[in-house]
Amino acid sequence: MRDPKPRSGGSGVSLTRADRARTVASVLRRQVMRGAFPGGVLPDERALIAEFDASRNTVREALGLLRDEGLVERRRGVGTVVTGRAYEHPLGELSGLAEVLQRHGVVVNEVREARVLRPPLTVARRLGLPEGGMAVYLERLRRVDGIPLSLDCTYLIPEVGEPLLARAGKTPRTLENHDVFDLIETATGMPLGSAEVSVHATVTDPATCAVLEMPAGGAILAVERLTRLADGRPADLEFLHLRGDRLTLHATLDRATRYTDPSGSSSS
Amino acid sequence: MRDPKPRSGGSGVSLTRADRARTVASVLRRQVMRGAFPGGVLPDERALIAEFDASRNTVREALGLLRDEGLVERRRGVGTVVTGRAYEHPLGELSGLAEVLQRHGVVVNEVREARVLRPPLTVARRLGLPEGGMAVYLERLRRVDGIPLSLDCTYLIPEVGEPLLARAGKTPRTLENHDVFDLIETATGMPLGSAEVSVHATVTDPATCAVLEMPAGGAILAVERLTRLADGRPADLEFLHLRGDRLTLHATLDRATRYTDPSGSSSS
Repeated sequence: MRDPKPRSGGSGVSLTRADRARTVASVLRRQVMRGAFPGGVLPDERALIAEFDASRNTVREALGLLRDEGLVERRRGVGTVVTGRAYEHPLGELSGLAEVLQRHGVVVNEVREARVLRPPLTVARRLGLPEGGMAVYLERLRRVDGIPLSLDCTYLIPEVGEPLLARAGKTPRTLENHDVFDLIETATGMPLGSAEVSVHATVTDPATCAVLEMPAGGAILAVERLTRLADGRPADLEFLHLRGDRLTLHATLDRATRYTDPSGSSSS
Repeated sequence: MRDPKPRSGGSGVSLTRADRARTVASVLRRQVMRGAFPGGVLPDERALIAEFDASRNTVREALGLLRDEGLVERRRGVGTVVTGRAYEHPLGELSGLAEVLQRHGVVVNEVREARVLRPPLTVARRLGLPEGGMAVYLERLRRVDGIPLSLDCTYLIPEVGEPLLARAGKTPRTLENHDVFDLIETATGMPLGSAEVSVHATVTDPATCAVLEMPAGGAILAVERLTRLADGRPADLEFLHLRGDRLTLHATLDRATRYTDPSGSSSS
């Protein structure tokens, strides 16, 4: 940090090799995640050095970062290859994961829990339930072509959750083969309106890594989604755990819509 | 996994304590991140046991998860307290981080690099630049009230980046005190149109943790944002590294807009 002043055409602080490697890794990470490399094979070291106008050590450090994230691996005689397929989930609309993923492979949901319970007070409040009121809890592990992508914990209001459980009791595999959004609309006949989504990144614990079959110490997108019926009433509150190494959220935003509500829309 | 079939009103697989702790932690994590606890102090163990209808060990395990994520800590004589303030960044519109954060504190950007360079080919392509064409590269560390929240690496097209550097050369602290979006619109007179945003979660390396002053091995939201001018031309491509323990992305979605473009809008 020899010179904190920016100079037009010149550099600000002295960037280290680690800084340069981070930028190279950021660009490569996006290419890996959107499947930009033909056959899943990255360009060789020489090509990357030319492409990024970087030193051999910087390129090696960048590839090391992606290896540590579990996105690529070195394969003898082949080079650096992408370890697994990644999927994009559009955030700019309200649709279930399966609705999006079913065009990429066979989506199966393993039902881990489906029962009536008394939700935590903060969940009850967000769902507009009376204090002490019951909810339906649904926990599912979602796989595409056998690979776990998401562990979803869902609290539903009784008017929505109970018809859904009843339907699942009559028609086996209902919960296995359908998105919650679809289930809500078909089981209850109530159309959905909007959802409020909060996204954050967190390192996950060994138990969650094991369930999601991801490398220990990996990161997840922890998503909270409050979905409302068309009439504005909350329908369900979900806590989604999406594998960071396999799922990207995608959105298109407009400049026209400026920030107008400093208080935010979430409460309690 | 004794019984993978869901039963109406009953449970599917046998959930372990780790499963229950994950759900408790998910609910608490959102409360921590949106500042729901008065004075930053969590309810005591007894209250949490009642609230979540959980065992003492489950509650302790959930609090341990949040401690491992760096979100809370135990303070003798006080209990479990939130370690730091978190901020929400609305994703549902195109606005810069400073535009959102400046109502929460003093935003200062440390300029780490600001210069003309030849961008990687994949960046040049996404910016619509000719092969071998130059771009302006800007790297800034963004702080709110002194706390680093985001490390932003930005490639701008020359028509946008060069006036911006020229302005920074004439008016000191231009880059320190303004969002790139504001800078683009004021320095070039060209209004912005829309942006495509991709979000993923990743564990970050020691060097990045050090720059962001976050705990080693923490998670970040790695965001790629391609911003277009009102006429549709790409203006800049950014790679943002947002601290997972301090920033949440927030969006409101409509069910009306269904997924219609299976190919996605991004290209190599």
